[in-house]
Amino acid sequence: MAVEVLAFAGGVGGAKLALGLARVLPPDRLTVVVNTGDDETFHGLHVSPDLDTVMYTLAGLSNPETGWGLAGDTFNTLGMLKRYGVDAWFNLGDLDMATHLRRTQLLTQGASLSEVTTDLCRRLGVEHRVAPMSDQAVRTVLNTEAGELAMQEYFVKHRSEPAVNDIRYVGADKASPSIALTDALAHARMVVICPSNPFLSIGPMLAVPGVREGLESFSGVRVAVSPLVGESAFRGPAAKIMAELGKTASSVGVAHEYAGIVDYFLIDERDADQSSRIAALGMKPLCAPIIMDTEADKVALAEYVLGLGAG
Amino acid sequence: MAVEVLAFAGGVGGAKLALGLARVLPPDRLTVVVNTGDDETFHGLHVSPDLDTVMYTLAGLSNPETGWGLAGDTFNTLGMLKRYGVDAWFNLGDLDMATHLRRTQLLTQGASLSEVTTDLCRRLGVEHRVAPMSDQAVRTVLNTEAGELAMQEYFVKHRSEPAVNDIRYVGADKASPSIALTDALAHARMVVICPSNPFLSIGPMLAVPGVREGLESFSGVRVAVSPLVGESAFRGPAAKIMAELGKTASSVGVAHEYAGIVDYFLIDERDADQSSRIAALGMKPLCAPIIMDTEADKVALAEYVLGLGAG
Repeated sequence: MAVEVLAFAGGVGGAKLALGLARVLPPDRLTVVVNTGDDETFHGLHVSPDLDTVMYTLAGLSNPETGWGLAGDTFNTLGMLKRYGVDAWFNLGDLDMATHLRRTQLLTQGASLSEVTTDLCRRLGVEHRVAPMSDQAVRTVLNTEAGELAMQEYFVKHRSEPAVNDIRYVGADKASPSIALTDALAHARMVVICPSNPFLSIGPMLAVPGVREGLESFSGVRVAVSPLVGESAFRGPAAKIMAELGKTASSVGVAHEYAGIVDYFLIDERDADQSSRIAALGMKPLCAPIIMDTEADKVALAEYVLGLGAG
Repeated sequence: MAVEVLAFAGGVGGAKLALGLARVLPPDRLTVVVNTGDDETFHGLHVSPDLDTVMYTLAGLSNPETGWGLAGDTFNTLGMLKRYGVDAWFNLGDLDMATHLRRTQLLTQGASLSEVTTDLCRRLGVEHRVAPMSDQAVRTVLNTEAGELAMQEYFVKHRSEPAVNDIRYVGADKASPSIALTDALAHARMVVICPSNPFLSIGPMLAVPGVREGLESFSGVRVAVSPLVGESAFRGPAAKIMAELGKTASSVGVAHEYAGIVDYFLIDERDADQSSRIAALGMKPLCAPIIMDTEADKVALAEYVLGLGAG
């Protein structure tokens, strides 16, 4: 029953590798811990965008065109909310709404976010363990030229446009890792940091007290996958934010954030010229098939990653 | 700006006459006060079935086939809730869900049910005043052979099947009439009790302290429309419940509940033989076109009713 692999995932990119890992590993060997820094209350409901993306992806229900949301969803409730004058800028489908209704109801009844996530996953047939990084609220807040913005406000409402000066993880100092995260950190043989935004997806998880320290002292193999090729993220504003924060907007810049907590750093072969600078950060750079378009790509990358722990 | 007519309405039957009245009277001359005894919390949301039926009907948005719910609605959220193992026996459409989400959010923010109703109605273009009977919770509870059941539990989940021994309006003794109801009782020239269930729709309103007394001392014309023809309700379990409660299951039985608060009691001509027994209750029976199938029927009945106040 020992957990083999602990994967850290944000949204769409993280969910892709999580799916690959889930295709290769039996259910009791994989724990996917998910960012909740961009959880938000919409229309009175607790929405956990990254948890849902991972859950829907592992359940085989996600919208293949967007990577988030549910395939075949409709948006009738949202349209009617707009008729009621509600500023409904965050796209919530009708099927998706049931997730938020159920989650909110269970939280209101006193369940933890971990317990809710376990229940929802089980109902959707997700057998691998999926857990929030923490049961306490941590909120990623971006200090931008347009003022302070919560993560989804920045990402969706403002389309990642305002320049970012600073990022804070509000509440992180008082949060604790979820039981699943603590448990997996103690027992896993391998940690995988999925190709997610280092500041908006992985950063909030590393900010929870004990997590970065747990990774520093982790005795197994630690692998991270770059979310960038060249100076572009596969998806989302990672490179833009890194540049605005005065970081190097490339895989080297990502690796810099993971110095001391990663043994292998996987990059696209087009970034092979960054290898020596990554190696200088104390981790081993490896050119790997990190672009995951098809499910076969996801499984192939998962197998590559898992191979690093087999030795 | 004087309110001319105060109408008491329950669900579908009441909404029909309310629509007729709204077609004839300008917005500032009609207040429709609606039963909230079967309000219920579903999936954490405050649902007001009768308020919604009246609001949707006056907005021209109601489902013409059922009389409740919204035309063209879908049920995707509900289907997904069932997938999450929720006992989703109350039919809530996706468009409809927005009403409950918005209402719940506004109530949580501290608005009264009256204020919420005014806001929702305004957004849907309803110009006549629609208000709950009270801003405090009153719950119609049926003591049945299947145990104590809330109104919608009895009506929808149990399909009105269990025999009813007793009906209570829990919380009514501590409730106050809504401001709109108090205001209309003080200023209207006419009261109309719409053809709704006397125990499940009108009863809860009469149980709010001050309402029955206000009707007893009302100086204008008071008209009630029977919800029964012969021993059958147009819709719903009125006749069945009256028989189980040991009442006369006919228009006479309904009139009995309104003794002292009604001047004119409108019945179908097929019930003309009940006229003398109704007259013995201290009100004037009138055979009138009380069957409302088409909108023209609703307007015709409204005009007939309003004609009684014109003298």
